[in-house]
Amino acid sequence: MLITITTDFGTRDGYVGTMKGVIAGIAPGVPCIDITQEIPPQDVRSAAYVLWTALPYFPPESIHVVVVDPGVGTARRPIAARTPWGTLVGPDNGIFSYVWESAPPMRIVELANPAYRNVAVSSTFHGRDIFSPAAAYLARGVPLDEFGPEVTDPVRLPAPLLTVTDTTITGEVIYIDHFGNVITSIGRLVWDGALLALDPAFGEVPSGIINAGRVRVIAAGRDLGPVRRTYGEVEPGEPLALVGSEGLLELAVNRGHGAQALGLAIGDAVEIALH
Amino acid sequence: MLITITTDFGTRDGYVGTMKGVIAGIAPGVPCIDITQEIPPQDVRSAAYVLWTALPYFPPESIHVVVVDPGVGTARRPIAARTPWGTLVGPDNGIFSYVWESAPPMRIVELANPAYRNVAVSSTFHGRDIFSPAAAYLARGVPLDEFGPEVTDPVRLPAPLLTVTDTTITGEVIYIDHFGNVITSIGRLVWDGALLALDPAFGEVPSGIINAGRVRVIAAGRDLGPVRRTYGEVEPGEPLALVGSEGLLELAVNRGHGAQALGLAIGDAVEIALH
Amino acid sequence: MLITITTDFGTRDGYVGTMKGVIAGIAPGVPCIDITQEIPPQDVRSAAYVLWTALPYFPPESIHVVVVDPGVGTARRPIAARTPWGTLVGPDNGIFSYVWESAPPMRIVELANPAYRNVAVSSTFHGRDIFSPAAAYLARGVPLDEFGPEVTDPVRLPAPLLTVTDTTITGEVIYIDHFGNVITSIGRLVWDGALLALDPAFGEVPSGIINAGRVRVIAAGRDLGPVRRTYGEVEPGEPLALVGSEGLLELAVNRGHGAQALGLAIGDAVEIALH
Repeated sequence: MLITITTDFGTRDGYVGTMKGVIAGIAPGVPCIDITQEIPPQDVRSAAYVLWTALPYFPPESIHVVVVDPGVGTARRPIAARTPWGTLVGPDNGIFSYVWESAPPMRIVELANPAYRNVAVSSTFHGRDIFSPAAAYLARGVPLDEFGPEVTDPVRLPAPLLTVTDTTITGEVIYIDHFGNVITSIGRLVWDGALLALDPAFGEVPSGIINAGRVRVIAAGRDLGPVRRTYGEVEPGEPLALVGSEGLLELAVNRGHGAQALGLAIGDAVEIALH
Repeated sequence: MLITITTDFGTRDGYVGTMKGVIAGIAPGVPCIDITQEIPPQDVRSAAYVLWTALPYFPPESIHVVVVDPGVGTARRPIAARTPWGTLVGPDNGIFSYVWESAPPMRIVELANPAYRNVAVSSTFHGRDIFSPAAAYLARGVPLDEFGPEVTDPVRLPAPLLTVTDTTITGEVIYIDHFGNVITSIGRLVWDGALLALDPAFGEVPSGIINAGRVRVIAAGRDLGPVRRTYGEVEPGEPLALVGSEGLLELAVNRGHGAQALGLAIGDAVEIALH
Repeated sequence: MLITITTDFGTRDGYVGTMKGVIAGIAPGVPCIDITQEIPPQDVRSAAYVLWTALPYFPPESIHVVVVDPGVGTARRPIAARTPWGTLVGPDNGIFSYVWESAPPMRIVELANPAYRNVAVSSTFHGRDIFSPAAAYLARGVPLDEFGPEVTDPVRLPAPLLTVTDTTITGEVIYIDHFGNVITSIGRLVWDGALLALDPAFGEVPSGIINAGRVRVIAAGRDLGPVRRTYGEVEPGEPLALVGSEGLLELAVNRGHGAQALGLAIGDAVEIALH
């Protein structure tokens, strides 16, 4: 049993430490693991992506608290969701959308029961007052339905752009990591769909697309050539495309900052030309 | 049983990891929790504030090591203090002042006993050589008085400014968080004092001041209007005042950096006009 | 039993959290401790130094995973090494060189056995797919020789420069910490060698060199005077030399950034004049 914490609180103030104190008081001995506290402020999409990459590597009995919550203090619901990738706790703002694509929720409830909140609930720090207590009581074995009524209409982010024609696959930038590597929606997300249908050589592992050789990657008006295997296949300072560790098409600059060099931001279109 | 660590060491070097190694060697299995390692360098007041916000949320048997220590290598005493909010370990430089206001120490001792230090004590890294061993031996159950003689005259920071007249409450900036939100001395610290006396509506919970409606907040020469409930009550880029998650009056800019926009620094005065 | 993690991954993305998930899945209940995730990108020398400072403070049964790996995806070997300072897991690129100087490896093996890797191994994230699983299986007690064949020719960094004449000791900058303090190769590394032979007053503890008084430190064309005991012995803004917490000669500026003020970088020469 363990609890992970993902927020946009940063690590400079005592906010995340305080959440761990709340958890230690309710569920002594349950370890807390940081996924990251440095999601860009209020960036629900980046949080959704990071969760999708990290959660499958945790034991399925884990509890994952996520607080990226532009709507704190408004009417948005606090929720908990049981999924094959663990139990998720956070605001109902779409943050779990990408996880739910891969690991559909078995049940979602609203965190409405005051017995599993702090006695006083502030209007600005639900991480401390609602979400951490919920995670800790879940870790102690309180059944999900004790927390509140079922939620059947959770907020979901729109699916990342991905369109396929006879000659192109078009996706979009879904994340930029701290090295500046640009991660796109093209890849693992569609393995059991379009990409496989187009080319049997795009097998079920990332090496499928790597070995394809028949594609060219077009981004920000530049032809980045075929999909490479490692950054070092191009000269330092040169851009390239490769399949990243998540099986997604990634745009990078060898020893440089890909997003800056290519002028790409989250949501920008990226194309693969098939021929 | 757990140990928290709060320092200004940053997370780039191996300093905090080394402290955790020392603790693991003396008290195996006792978890270490970061409150923050990013207190502004040598900023004792900010550290005192962060501890005051975080410690009440930890189990009272916790041990809290704090190393913000401009005087390392000089004659300032290393101390440990038993309080209702846990046992505090750190330099005697006022760092525990705000905690002691809310949770007065039952007993303070000097960490003088060489049996509970590293064999070699450097002149620049007492976090590793004195404070971490002390915390670990405390976690193993060594009685407080084994560490050294009682301290009856610990260093205390001056109390934050807070003056009350028939028409105004004047406080000061006591912390600026990494979002740029400006936390003042006006609020929870005085609930059982001046504020309650002035207006029974200022109850024991933050909502008291929120609902008051009869106050205006004046800071940096600007009238910020009444106390709001959430950031979103003003337009993006506009300043506001609200009661933060600690029950203290906080000055902020909706989706902006309050301290920069208002030109406020720690120690600057803030006024509430009552009418 | 514990596992430490040291990388250049930063803390913004979910990479280190993912590694901890892998470990929790294989070795539940084994705590993970961050040494630092902010080694300068691909800076093998700085990583080697940080490990050398932190590892002796951990229990010798600890397992230390290190991923600073410019060669990921190339033919460089992943290895594990049993040493008196714990079991080291990481790429064979010299990263353990300084530790091995002080704590010579008893046995080194290549991490070749696919049974102790993730099922799918990416070409860009061996921290997740090879090194974390290896650390976790080691923590579960899998014998070192199960992981692969012995390695007898591991990569080693060149020893830091250190030359001694009748009148000078010349070393080099081996690390710059986040305060800007400049750590050199002169000091503890040579206690059982040249320095002791030159001057019996240079005892086995750092205070030996401090009390010597007969030396002057020359760096970046400036005479920094004798070795001091604390930063405060010179005026704010003035440079100085002292023996740091590791017993190494350190160049600093009181309340300033030594490396910037002195124009020093890793590898630059530093001299002690003896007279």
